[in-house]
Amino acid sequence: MNTETTIPFVFWIIPLASVCALAMAWYFFRSMMKEEEGTARMAEIALYVRRGAMAYLKQQYRVVLIVFLVLAILFAVMAYGFNAQNPWVPFAFLTGGFFSGLAGFFGMKTATYASARTANAARHSLDRGLRVAFRSGAVMGLVVVGLGLLDIAAWFLVLTWFYKGDSSALITVTTTMLTFGMGASTQALFARVGGGIYTKAADVGADLVGKVEADIPEDDPRNPATIADNVGDNVGDVAGMGADLYESYCGSILSTAALGATAFASAAGDMQMRAVVAPMLIAAVGVFLSLLGIWLVRTREGATMKNLLHSLGMGTNTAAALIVVATFLILWLLRIDNWVGVGFSVVSGLAAGVVIGQATEYYTSQSFRPTQDISRSSQTGAATVIIKGIGTGMISTCVPVLTISAAILLSYLCGNGFDMSMSAHSIQTGLYGIGIAAVGMLSTLGITLATDAYGPIADNAGGNAEMSGLGEEVRRRTDALDALGNTTAATGKGFAIGSAALTALALLASYIEEVKIAMHRVGDTMTSVGGQTIDAAQATIPDFMNFFQVNLMNPKVLVGAFVGAMAAFLFCGLTMGAVGRAAARMVEEVRRQFREIPGILDGTGTPDYGRCVEISTLSAQHEMVVPSLLAIVIPIVVGLLLGVAGVLGLLVGGLAAGFTLAVFMANAGGAWDNAKKYVEEGHFGGKGSDCHKATIVGDTVGDPFKDTSGPSLNILIKLMSMVSIVMAGLTIAFA
Amino acid sequence: MNTETTIPFVFWIIPLASVCALAMAWYFFRSMMKEEEGTARMAEIALYVRRGAMAYLKQQYRVVLIVFLVLAILFAVMAYGFNAQNPWVPFAFLTGGFFSGLAGFFGMKTATYASARTANAARHSLDRGLRVAFRSGAVMGLVVVGLGLLDIAAWFLVLTWFYKGDSSALITVTTTMLTFGMGASTQALFARVGGGIYTKAADVGADLVGKVEADIPEDDPRNPATIADNVGDNVGDVAGMGADLYESYCGSILSTAALGATAFASAAGDMQMRAVVAPMLIAAVGVFLSLLGIWLVRTREGATMKNLLHSLGMGTNTAAALIVVATFLILWLLRIDNWVGVGFSVVSGLAAGVVIGQATEYYTSQSFRPTQDISRSSQTGAATVIIKGIGTGMISTCVPVLTISAAILLSYLCGNGFDMSMSAHSIQTGLYGIGIAAVGMLSTLGITLATDAYGPIADNAGGNAEMSGLGEEVRRRTDALDALGNTTAATGKGFAIGSAALTALALLASYIEEVKIAMHRVGDTMTSVGGQTIDAAQATIPDFMNFFQVNLMNPKVLVGAFVGAMAAFLFCGLTMGAVGRAAARMVEEVRRQFREIPGILDGTGTPDYGRCVEISTLSAQHEMVVPSLLAIVIPIVVGLLLGVAGVLGLLVGGLAAGFTLAVFMANAGGAWDNAKKYVEEGHFGGKGSDCHKATIVGDTVGDPFKDTSGPSLNILIKLMSMVSIVMAGLTIAFA
Repeated sequence: MNTETTIPFVFWIIPLASVCALAMAWYFFRSMMKEEEGTARMAEIALYVRRGAMAYLKQQYRVVLIVFLVLAILFAVMAYGFNAQNPWVPFAFLTGGFFSGLAGFFGMKTATYASARTANAARHSLDRGLRVAFRSGAVMGLVVVGLGLLDIAAWFLVLTWFYKGDSSALITVTTTMLTFGMGASTQALFARVGGGIYTKAADVGADLVGKVEADIPEDDPRNPATIADNVGDNVGDVAGMGADLYESYCGSILSTAALGATAFASAAGDMQMRAVVAPMLIAAVGVFLSLLGIWLVRTREGATMKNLLHSLGMGTNTAAALIVVATFLILWLLRIDNWVGVGFSVVSGLAAGVVIGQATEYYTSQSFRPTQDISRSSQTGAATVIIKGIGTGMISTCVPVLTISAAILLSYLCGNGFDMSMSAHSIQTGLYGIGIAAVGMLSTLGITLATDAYGPIADNAGGNAEMSGLGEEVRRRTDALDALGNTTAATGKGFAIGSAALTALALLASYIEEVKIAMHRVGDTMTSVGGQTIDAAQATIPDFMNFFQVNLMNPKVLVGAFVGAMAAFLFCGLTMGAVGRAAARMVEEVRRQFREIPGILDGTGTPDYGRCVEISTLSAQHEMVVPSLLAIVIPIVVGLLLGVAGVLGLLVGGLAAGFTLAVFMANAGGAWDNAKKYVEEGHFGGKGSDCHKATIVGDTVGDPFKDTSGPSLNILIKLMSMVSIVMAGLTIAFA
Repeated sequence: MNTETTIPFVFWIIPLASVCALAMAWYFFRSMMKEEEGTARMAEIALYVRRGAMAYLKQQYRVVLIVFLVLAILFAVMAYGFNAQNPWVPFAFLTGGFFSGLAGFFGMKTATYASARTANAARHSLDRGLRVAFRSGAVMGLVVVGLGLLDIAAWFLVLTWFYKGDSSALITVTTTMLTFGMGASTQALFARVGGGIYTKAADVGADLVGKVEADIPEDDPRNPATIADNVGDNVGDVAGMGADLYESYCGSILSTAALGATAFASAAGDMQMRAVVAPMLIAAVGVFLSLLGIWLVRTREGATMKNLLHSLGMGTNTAAALIVVATFLILWLLRIDNWVGVGFSVVSGLAAGVVIGQATEYYTSQSFRPTQDISRSSQTGAATVIIKGIGTGMISTCVPVLTISAAILLSYLCGNGFDMSMSAHSIQTGLYGIGIAAVGMLSTLGITLATDAYGPIADNAGGNAEMSGLGEEVRRRTDALDALGNTTAATGKGFAIGSAALTALALLASYIEEVKIAMHRVGDTMTSVGGQTIDAAQATIPDFMNFFQVNLMNPKVLVGAFVGAMAAFLFCGLTMGAVGRAAARMVEEVRRQFREIPGILDGTGTPDYGRCVEISTLSAQHEMVVPSLLAIVIPIVVGLLLGVAGVLGLLVGGLAAGFTLAVFMANAGGAWDNAKKYVEEGHFGGKGSDCHKATIVGDTVGDPFKDTSGPSLNILIKLMSMVSIVMAGLTIAFA
């Protein structure tokens, strides 16, 4: 086909948005650095935390680097040795990992500088504390979207220049770019798993000995694990989350671009190019709306809590509302076929995100019945707290799954103009609708991530205040900042969870395309449904499914689905086990220090903070490898043993079971956390009562649920798809 | 086609086996009743338990009766009003429920009569205790297989007489008989859920107040919930398990018969009839082997524990080994096409059952590392016991899922002679191989269920001994009997879990056949892959999948898979929540009695046992309805909204996620139970230590895992398939 593939002029908005985001991030970073760090003690503690965090990140990157080099060499062999992969793949893979790591690094650097400054600002007033913390969080948000768009724009320019020509070129370009998504996903999984193990080993260890045995409060400087705990918040909640959302952001844009390239491959004119650019452009405009939103979060001197909440809500809601308008405008300006329908795909995605966010809020906030009931069950002890929490978490999967199901159907049907004919075009345009819905949900990530990332900063500021002995008032203000973030973060969480499911579906479709490309590359043909021998690249969905025997009666598909569901459980089991082992090591160390270092508990002796930091670092580094490699190895082995049919079964089984399991774990963990807070607010006996102790057990169990296993699952699902896509050539060659 | 459909002479072995099983059950029951019941106190306690159990069963059957009547009327309307179902369905459905209920009733009646008699026999010696308990357990095993084969043989005779004629008649006969499977599954789900809630509410309630708060031992007569706890063992572990395995047994035979009818529909001569009769015949011969095995379990006066273990293992292993030989013989005598291959399908199923049983043993027995590690984690408190237990349970899904995956592939490939062509015949014969593997695993149910069912009888005997003050020695013997059962039960459990997954797959295939029959019944045609209009009954698998757009890129299939996975979690969440609520009510009542009735704890006052029994009964009756109805409503709603494609997605998603979740919950629960026992054996401080208290929390959480939610899931998966099959006519008419 001789379609037009010149990059349109509006494309340049994308690098522009990237530069603006990075420039603003730099500006916010500089202005945060100008703030006072407070007393010498505050600066000293911040330095401890910063050093620990950087030391860990260095260790983590060292392990990840080895994995990346091994994989890159494997890809190079596949590409240059066996022609089983595109020659750009090894490089794209490496840059994806590099930029994802960079986003985490910048975010964490900012956060570790911001904690003492936030605490110091909170000494003056609540609103000054908010400004410092929120703008520091915004650095992370803007760095993620800025680097993401930079990487996307750069590769797109290089590859379209290299593969200029017909419509199949754009398919090659976009699927090659997916491999940089795999780099980002791999980095993200290591960051989430490693960071998650680190932070929860320190947290659980600190709580078990500190709070429960020695009866000293959270963040007390007498607790040897307290610095490690604060380091953990940074490496887990900040660096881990940054890498995670970088992966989601790029993954949704890249998979949608790939779907656009396929769906409109035979369209006239430059329709294909416009369909590819559309998701990038929506994301770019989202950056400007995020900047607008961040600018709207302004506080007057002496603002009340209510003012602050209103201000924060104003920023995120305005950005979300305007992105709807902007999306319709962009789609219309780009003259996308069925632009109204595609626009409504985005609306259904955003609506689903809001509903999932609200449902999450309902099941995990102590303002509602479910969490209060968990608190109430503490009257009959820890066992009933656990039973109730698990029950609630499982029930809480219902609304998110039904909502995302509705969003899948709606965004598919809006995307293809309510065409259920299952023709190749109807399926591909429908999937394009699903993909672009995910892009819409993540397009305002600049600001939603800011509200997410400033939570751990406020938390760390609280830790700094406690350890520096700044007193109740400052601590109360930092707690209020943290709570403030939780309230507005619900929608962001809903968007993150929902977009993960939609992106995974889009990647499923990309896998099919990549298999076709891989066959085309080596000259393999296919037998169509009608019995003709055709070029694999020309195969329709029914041709493809028929040729590879992908149907629900094929035992390979069924076995794949079983293995996919099992992989999700196995992965969670391994990460839970890792946290358990690492926490046990930490508990032993803290007990040892209490026993061997005289005077720790009465404040005359100094605990050996460094040893605890070291234990967390080594444990996390050691324990993160097996579960993370699992996500890479399983799809390869299934592909080699069971072929394309097995891989598709694996991805569907893994997605359905993994998504549900992820929601269960995140919500159960969140509910236990807040059930404890509800008791601490004075219900059922309040702090120190037996009910409180029972809810602390729940909270401790919930820690790895919500901060290690749960959030890693979303990455696992997508990484398994990414690996399948990149390894498609291998599957074709050997299975 | 004009194939031969006369019932072969060997068929009569099936009713003969049924009559023998029932006669032997009657004989064992009579000889158990001839034993002495012991002291007046023992008889009195047994009477309390028996009355409570019967009262509950009556209540449960009353609720179930309403559900059955409503469903039967619905089927009648579908059959007679809309021609959307076979006219025999309402009746078949009712008999399935009736016989399943009857099996539970007889089993429980025997168990409640046997407990005091076992305790009394154990006063004399261990081996006399074993004889009474084991033979009473055998009553349950034999009643289940006897009634199952009776129901199957009777319906088969009636329906083949009614539908005599060509090869499509046998397809109609066997798919109609599947509806009696639905009756059995519905009854089983209510029995498992209701009984599971009852027993765990009483158990958790009794433990939480008795053991933890009042510090009195298990089964102490001062605990008001202790009679309810013993009643619970009967209604949950005996009646619930009986109905459950009745469902599995009949389900595997019926679905395999239905697959045989389809796979050999166009074969010459009476091959189709022989393929239909083969699974029934294997089951019938299994009955005789079970009787042989039961006869081999003989004990000499003064036998040691080791002798007893050997004797029990001798019985089950001989039966299992001989069924392999018998299966090859039967298949050869019946001249089944590819009989060697089909025989090896059975071998692969049996091998998988053994491996799953061993893996279960490894992950849940205190003789191995995983459970010992859970005990060890009690040194850092209850929270780490829970984290470790959940982690272990999740990791433990790996071996069973991989094993069942291998069994699926092997039994499929052996069944069709290693034909991966995906032709209609290759798929159907492969699935026949999968089905018959499940039949092989359950064919010796007569003896494996005996070793399973005598566990709760020994447990109850122990309770009776404790409450009657018979002393340590008797209690030690009954505990030994219980432990003995656990050791041999592993293989039985492996067979039960594995066969559930295989049967569910067979039912998936039956669903497709039933849709074709439903379309044929109302005269609907299909468009084949080639574009011709064909009679639905003639459609091949590719025709079917193409016509209903069942492919993994159809959002309806994907949404179905999401909803299926969610259904498994929601179901578990609801049953966990139900146990939590019911247990809380029990705890309040026990606390109230301790407070209000003077002298309970020093033994001068008598607790109001009846009130606790009543609370358990009402809670269970009330709480079982919603989760059980869910299994019926979800497939109907998905069928109406998303059609055949959605239903197939639902069943695959539900099967993959549900099976994995079931293994996780059963193993985590079992491991916690034994981790507590390991501490009680004297490790980590032994009874009464802090470690012991921490493991009691784990055990309590594990109770609903392993005895309520976990075992119900296996039924849920199959019931959802059964409902889809029976409602296929409705889906076709309205979707």
